[in-house]
Amino acid sequence: MKPTRSTLKIGELATGQDLELPIFQFTPAVMRGPSVYIQANVHGAEVQGNAVIYQLMQQLENCELLGSVTLVPLANPLGINQKSGEFTLGRFDPITGVNWNREYLNHHIDVAAWYRQHAELDDNALVAAYRAMLLDSCQQRLQHEWGVTTGHRQAVTLQHLGHQADIVLDLHTGPKACKHLYCPEYDSEAARLFSIAHTLFMPNEFGGAMDESIFYPWWQLCQYLAAQGRELALPVSAFTLELGSQEHIDLADARLDADGIMAYLSHRGVVADPILPAKMARYGCYLRDYKKYHSPMGGMVEYTAKLGEPLAAGSPLATILRVDQYGCGSTLTPLCLSQACVPILHFASASVYQGTELYKVMTHVFEL
Amino acid sequence: MKPTRSTLKIGELATGQDLELPIFQFTPAVMRGPSVYIQANVHGAEVQGNAVIYQLMQQLENCELLGSVTLVPLANPLGINQKSGEFTLGRFDPITGVNWNREYLNHHIDVAAWYRQHAELDDNALVAAYRAMLLDSCQQRLQHEWGVTTGHRQAVTLQHLGHQADIVLDLHTGPKACKHLYCPEYDSEAARLFSIAHTLFMPNEFGGAMDESIFYPWWQLCQYLAAQGRELALPVSAFTLELGSQEHIDLADARLDADGIMAYLSHRGVVADPILPAKMARYGCYLRDYKKYHSPMGGMVEYTAKLGEPLAAGSPLATILRVDQYGCGSTLTPLCLSQACVPILHFASASVYQGTELYKVMTHVFEL
Amino acid sequence: MKPTRSTLKIGELATGQDLELPIFQFTPAVMRGPSVYIQANVHGAEVQGNAVIYQLMQQLENCELLGSVTLVPLANPLGINQKSGEFTLGRFDPITGVNWNREYLNHHIDVAAWYRQHAELDDNALVAAYRAMLLDSCQQRLQHEWGVTTGHRQAVTLQHLGHQADIVLDLHTGPKACKHLYCPEYDSEAARLFSIAHTLFMPNEFGGAMDESIFYPWWQLCQYLAAQGRELALPVSAFTLELGSQEHIDLADARLDADGIMAYLSHRGVVADPILPAKMARYGCYLRDYKKYHSPMGGMVEYTAKLGEPLAAGSPLATILRVDQYGCGSTLTPLCLSQACVPILHFASASVYQGTELYKVMTHVFEL
Amino acid sequence: MKPTRSTLKIGELATGQDLELPIFQFTPAVMRGPSVYIQANVHGAEVQGNAVIYQLMQQLENCELLGSVTLVPLANPLGINQKSGEFTLGRFDPITGVNWNREYLNHHIDVAAWYRQHAELDDNALVAAYRAMLLDSCQQRLQHEWGVTTGHRQAVTLQHLGHQADIVLDLHTGPKACKHLYCPEYDSEAARLFSIAHTLFMPNEFGGAMDESIFYPWWQLCQYLAAQGRELALPVSAFTLELGSQEHIDLADARLDADGIMAYLSHRGVVADPILPAKMARYGCYLRDYKKYHSPMGGMVEYTAKLGEPLAAGSPLATILRVDQYGCGSTLTPLCLSQACVPILHFASASVYQGTELYKVMTHVFEL
Repeated sequence: MKPTRSTLKIGELATGQDLELPIFQFTPAVMRGPSVYIQANVHGAEVQGNAVIYQLMQQLENCELLGSVTLVPLANPLGINQKSGEFTLGRFDPITGVNWNREYLNHHIDVAAWYRQHAELDDNALVAAYRAMLLDSCQQRLQHEWGVTTGHRQAVTLQHLGHQADIVLDLHTGPKACKHLYCPEYDSEAARLFSIAHTLFMPNEFGGAMDESIFYPWWQLCQYLAAQGRELALPVSAFTLELGSQEHIDLADARLDADGIMAYLSHRGVVADPILPAKMARYGCYLRDYKKYHSPMGGMVEYTAKLGEPLAAGSPLATILRVDQYGCGSTLTPLCLSQACVPILHFASASVYQGTELYKVMTHVFEL
Repeated sequence: MKPTRSTLKIGELATGQDLELPIFQFTPAVMRGPSVYIQANVHGAEVQGNAVIYQLMQQLENCELLGSVTLVPLANPLGINQKSGEFTLGRFDPITGVNWNREYLNHHIDVAAWYRQHAELDDNALVAAYRAMLLDSCQQRLQHEWGVTTGHRQAVTLQHLGHQADIVLDLHTGPKACKHLYCPEYDSEAARLFSIAHTLFMPNEFGGAMDESIFYPWWQLCQYLAAQGRELALPVSAFTLELGSQEHIDLADARLDADGIMAYLSHRGVVADPILPAKMARYGCYLRDYKKYHSPMGGMVEYTAKLGEPLAAGSPLATILRVDQYGCGSTLTPLCLSQACVPILHFASASVYQGTELYKVMTHVFEL
Repeated sequence: MKPTRSTLKIGELATGQDLELPIFQFTPAVMRGPSVYIQANVHGAEVQGNAVIYQLMQQLENCELLGSVTLVPLANPLGINQKSGEFTLGRFDPITGVNWNREYLNHHIDVAAWYRQHAELDDNALVAAYRAMLLDSCQQRLQHEWGVTTGHRQAVTLQHLGHQADIVLDLHTGPKACKHLYCPEYDSEAARLFSIAHTLFMPNEFGGAMDESIFYPWWQLCQYLAAQGRELALPVSAFTLELGSQEHIDLADARLDADGIMAYLSHRGVVADPILPAKMARYGCYLRDYKKYHSPMGGMVEYTAKLGEPLAAGSPLATILRVDQYGCGSTLTPLCLSQACVPILHFASASVYQGTELYKVMTHVFEL
Repeated sequence: MKPTRSTLKIGELATGQDLELPIFQFTPAVMRGPSVYIQANVHGAEVQGNAVIYQLMQQLENCELLGSVTLVPLANPLGINQKSGEFTLGRFDPITGVNWNREYLNHHIDVAAWYRQHAELDDNALVAAYRAMLLDSCQQRLQHEWGVTTGHRQAVTLQHLGHQADIVLDLHTGPKACKHLYCPEYDSEAARLFSIAHTLFMPNEFGGAMDESIFYPWWQLCQYLAAQGRELALPVSAFTLELGSQEHIDLADARLDADGIMAYLSHRGVVADPILPAKMARYGCYLRDYKKYHSPMGGMVEYTAKLGEPLAAGSPLATILRVDQYGCGSTLTPLCLSQACVPILHFASASVYQGTELYKVMTHVFEL
């Protein structure tokens, strides 16, 4: 089956040109499984997700589809086309500095009040009504009488697409990173279903990112219902997949990541074909134990710790070279942590200010 | 009296060079009045505060000083020296995008717990102990075992200077703006004491900016004490002064702003010389009524509304030119609001994306 | 008469989106006058030319047209949409740093060899053949087997449009500037025909800019023919108009500039309506006497010299504020020149490095 | 022997802070060999040269020195500290866009006139007088009455250091690159003396870069003398070493590069210790055969050709992914050249505009 292709306007440039998203949709003749929404490249330099979507579409064309799959590559045209020297300055809005992945709408729902008006609905109707409310809330936001920012318009437009699905995957990468998964704590079983070795278990809260914007309103609803003695399985799953390093396209590796996603979709009944996740040791930690290490000094950096591999307490993470201090100070300074960790990503540049975020490391790591 | 000059390290560049602040201090032989801290140019393009500090120092040299005055111009050397084309890209950290004026420390004080341990102190001792706790909290923050970001180091170092004073003034400018004052609601009387026509009354809360980081812990303390039946006058004042437009130095206008600040310092007993604020009509609104208007479309902008002057509902704020639409669409689009306002500032560039923050306007304006 | 509107692709973004130019064309039923090409906004922040094209189109609709007029506003979509903070980083390619207005093709014509093959043609046929050769040369350049740079593709595409016309106007602005005209020396009479008070007479050479790329091949041809004893009036005119300051749209002022251009077009017989240039004193200097003054020191700048007005030798151009030197060095440094000049433009930012180009001034100014 | 350390001011920032270079000097008790000048990191992101200077200094401390060696790491403090997102925007002046390595002084010497006044000197005195003239010319340039640009001041200050030496090495890197050497044609034998496999033989001309600014005046002199029948061996050598990729510090690899440089210095008699260059196959081409390949389209890029390895005509250099074209166009486009080449470097980002310089490749490669 071939996908249909459409476009969606998400903004306008200063020249008047529209900013548009390409949207690909696979729709089964009969819907027997959950619907899926997958986007990539919300951060402009994190391009590998586009290659994964390419590989996914090739596989989806050749499988038995039970649910629908909507794919949005190149989801941030302004960020993707924003060059600064030889790199893509696509992490934040160039005017405001706001991270493109912190612009999603916090619905601020008064769940108790909403439920008072919908308590009589059965589960299916309740879910449908809640979803409609979320979609309507996004659309009203976009009509705000004082306007909305460029980044908020883009984010809420994407979120409006995401709210229509049961499964939402947001494809990112780190700067220089090994693959890792952001998984909400309530859905921790899912961490075994992807083909990604390292997982961060994040609180069931809203912090501004796409995945949280999707699952958090449903988490609130289910929590409230549980307190009222009504059980509702959380009907939505949302994850952020970090697929290695930015500014890098690798079609063969993208095929592996597509396989991993297909395994999850198979488990969830989106495709009928039985596909198993890769066998691998899997590790995780809680987000509160995912630590940012900031450079204690300015200088040139040799990154020595291997990403994705355990590092003993006291072993060097990196070495700072301060050649200006040669003969009169510390020319080489090894940087060590006092506790064991697994380095997951490091800064993209080899020169840093004092305070630059050098590494992000998992601590208190456990095997899944 | 001449000021003493010292420097303070606030960071290190990639080349190893120190980032340093110049600090000027006027100290009376006998302290009989409050201590003052004034900083300027935390946003790199907002340079006029340096000229105001220059004019202030000239006046302080020739007056009878009762309290001490500490002045830190050029407070953000990294931001000030960050050029991008012909402009100063100094509003946010070039690596992270974080606004340099949202990096201050939220102390997250458990006031009840703290007070239980200090309830027996008299007012003076209580204030001294609380201040010591704030200073210590800043210093501990700077020693954090995982390091702190470049911007947080700079901000908390400035905050540590600010916590030592009774009066804190943070000198900023808008992009293209008329002069205006940020004044906390609890201190609203102060709005008449400066020589600034427009005032925004902000909630007594912490939002990340310097002024809030200074007054909010004291507001918390005084509120708690009041609830316990103990009256303590809030011993600290903090304001942000927006002194016109960025990328502009005007020494004569800086003299007027210095006069206005001297009037406030005179009223507060920092200088013995009686200096009155300029006579002018003064207007204000609450921060919740200070609205950001985002461009509903991309295009070229003619800014027509005069800053600082009332604009009737339905009158044009600006006109969008879309010459690409000539003959086939709306070439000129006037932008109007449905309510009366006073435009305070507008965007610095004459071309905008859809969603660019075009104007900030006061609504529900009242005379002071 | 209404213009026709078309678009022309000049590049592709990383997202795959086309970069396109809007093209407006006024074509008389019978061509009785010269053809005109006018472009604007090749530097991204220099937006006022778009407003001038808007006003021109309104006037062209209501006049008797003898020649054709082609107008390309928004001629550099990549540069116009390139924001960096609150300003448009549109002066150079963000990847390479190359000035968008130095990317035009130098034809490097061997005029002698070309003429040997075309000497038998009469003047009209000679001009047509030479023009065809220039157009073909541009098109071949765009087909280069190793590809061409983004900026060169854009520039040569514009140049290909320009070579088709008899009169080419490139609408720019300075950073902060008074209006001025770049006029080739051979065409110096034209400086009286626009409504612009200051003119720079540039050598009849190729330096990389649009105007030079248009007139220089013809200057070469006519020079060569003259050396062979054949007189040919130079059949092409090309000018750069600097219409004030960047990042500024003023529709009323654009009307004045459109009037000035209409006066030139009237004089040249493009429109039948008699329109006279504004009466004004006009001044000029040779490009070799147009001097760049670089800041002798770093610091904050108060720009004091008025643009477009004579400044006596020794009078201050600007003042550098170095508040960090207060009490221990030169806090205020006036910057003066040892010769009389007319300041034409100054840097856009109020803070500079040592060596920043602070002012461009005319020296050895003469009245036209 | 330990080096002495000094600093040299090359500019001033907007905050007033000096821009300074660290200078390390090894000076033998008796000068019996040539003097050497080595600089690194003139492009801000090309940091590896600093590590090479570190390794060189360690070796120089432990060898028998016959000539002097001056080392300037971190030679462009403004560029090195210029971050834009997670990368160093250090290739060009952020204000003007001018490449930091194209700012050196072209002396424009009238050699005939100069020689008429110095013809009576013997070779040693002639060389000394010519060198003195070059040094004086740099210093006069820095005193220019209209000032000089920020980049020109830095470059000419470095050039003034370079002119004092007999051997000048400028340490750079490519974006993503294999190691290669820029060697002037007159000095082609030197290409065997370094430990670098690929060499570009450049014309004996001035193109704006450091190496050319050093050797070209001497090439002019020697050519002129030869035409007068006087033989003078060119007394100066200058090379640019491209040490791999930017934004990368590798201390072990830097040791290899330091070894290679020591081999050259040994051959030239700067150090008494006999050190041989690494044995390796060496290849070269002329600069006119070093081709830039520009992307024929916008899109995402998978770089597939291995750097430093021969690529047959018609083999794919890279693949462009255009996922937006999935199902409706060419999703994958292999990019091939019609001739054999050795790819030397490619663009740093994985997404490109049409026209982005994708690869630089050697053609017509020969073995040395």
